[in-house]
Amino acid sequence: MLSAVGRVFATSSRSMATSALAPILGRLNHVAIACPDLEKASGFYKNLGADVSAAVPQPEHGVYTVFVNLGNAKIELLHPYGDKSPIEGFLAKNKAGGIHHVCIEVADIEKAIAKVKELGIRTLGDKAKIGAHGKPVIFLHPKDCLGVLTELEQA
Amino acid sequence: MLSAVGRVFATSSRSMATSALAPILGRLNHVAIACPDLEKASGFYKNLGADVSAAVPQPEHGVYTVFVNLGNAKIELLHPYGDKSPIEGFLAKNKAGGIHHVCIEVADIEKAIAKVKELGIRTLGDKAKIGAHGKPVIFLHPKDCLGVLTELEQA
Repeated sequence: MLSAVGRVFATSSRSMATSALAPILGRLNHVAIACPDLEKASGFYKNLGADVSAAVPQPEHGVYTVFVNLGNAKIELLHPYGDKSPIEGFLAKNKAGGIHHVCIEVADIEKAIAKVKELGIRTLGDKAKIGAHGKPVIFLHPKDCLGVLTELEQA
Repeated sequence: MLSAVGRVFATSSRSMATSALAPILGRLNHVAIACPDLEKASGFYKNLGADVSAAVPQPEHGVYTVFVNLGNAKIELLHPYGDKSPIEGFLAKNKAGGIHHVCIEVADIEKAIAKVKELGIRTLGDKAKIGAHGKPVIFLHPKDCLGVLTELEQA
C-alpha cells in the first residue's frame, strides 16, 4: 500500500479516480422515503416480499419510522408525527411522497463534522444529535450536497 | 422455522411485520443523483475520501455515469449525454440536481416483472433492457412506487 504522501501525489488515472484523502464516508446506511400513507407504503414493500418492520413513533424526531431491510442497506419510510414534523413541508411539495434523504455512515461523527465544515459544507445545527437508531447523526445542507439532503450517522 | 403456511397465518406482530411472501427484492444496488455539474459532483465525494470512478459516457442511455463505491452499495452520479437525455426534464425542474432514482436488485428480472404487473405496478416499457452495468433492468412508474422512480436490476 502507498503511503499517505505517495497517494496524495500519485498521478496514474487509477489513483486519481480513487480519492487519496482519508475516507470520511463509510457504508450507505439508508435511503429515506417520506410517505403520505405509511400503511400503503409498508404494504408496497411487503407485497414485494421484503422484510418490513412495524411502524415506530419517534416523537423527538417528529416522525413515524418503518424500516425495510434489504440486507446490505435499509429503506426508511417516514410519516409525520405531531404538528411540527420536519417532513410536513416536503410532503406539502411532494403530495405522493418521494425520497427525502440519504444516510451515509461515518466512523467518527465529530471528525466528520470538522471535515465537512473545513470543506465549506453547511450542517443543519452545529452539533450531532441522537438519531432514530440511537446513534449520533447530523444532517448536511442539501444545497452543499448536490441538492441531496444528506445525513451522516456514526456507525 | 415456521412452515410457509404457518408464516402466512401467523398473527404475532413480529411475524406480521416480516412479509411471508416470496421475496422479489434483493439488495439495494445504488441511489442515483442527477447532477448539473459532474466534475463538481465527483469532487464533492472525492473531498470526503470516497472511492469515485471516472466518468463514463453511456450513449445508449443518454447519460454520463460516475460511481461512488460506498462498499455495501453505490451512489451513481448522472449527467446528461446528448440532446435527448432522460434526465434533462428532471434537471430542468431541479436546477441544483437531486436524487433521481433508487435501484434494487432482483434475482430474476422476468419473474420480478410478472410480479409487479400482477400487483398493478406499471413498468416504463414492457421489457427489460440492458442497463448501464450490462445487466437486465426495468424501471417502475414512480406513481406506483411511493413517488420514487424505482429501477430493478437483475443481480
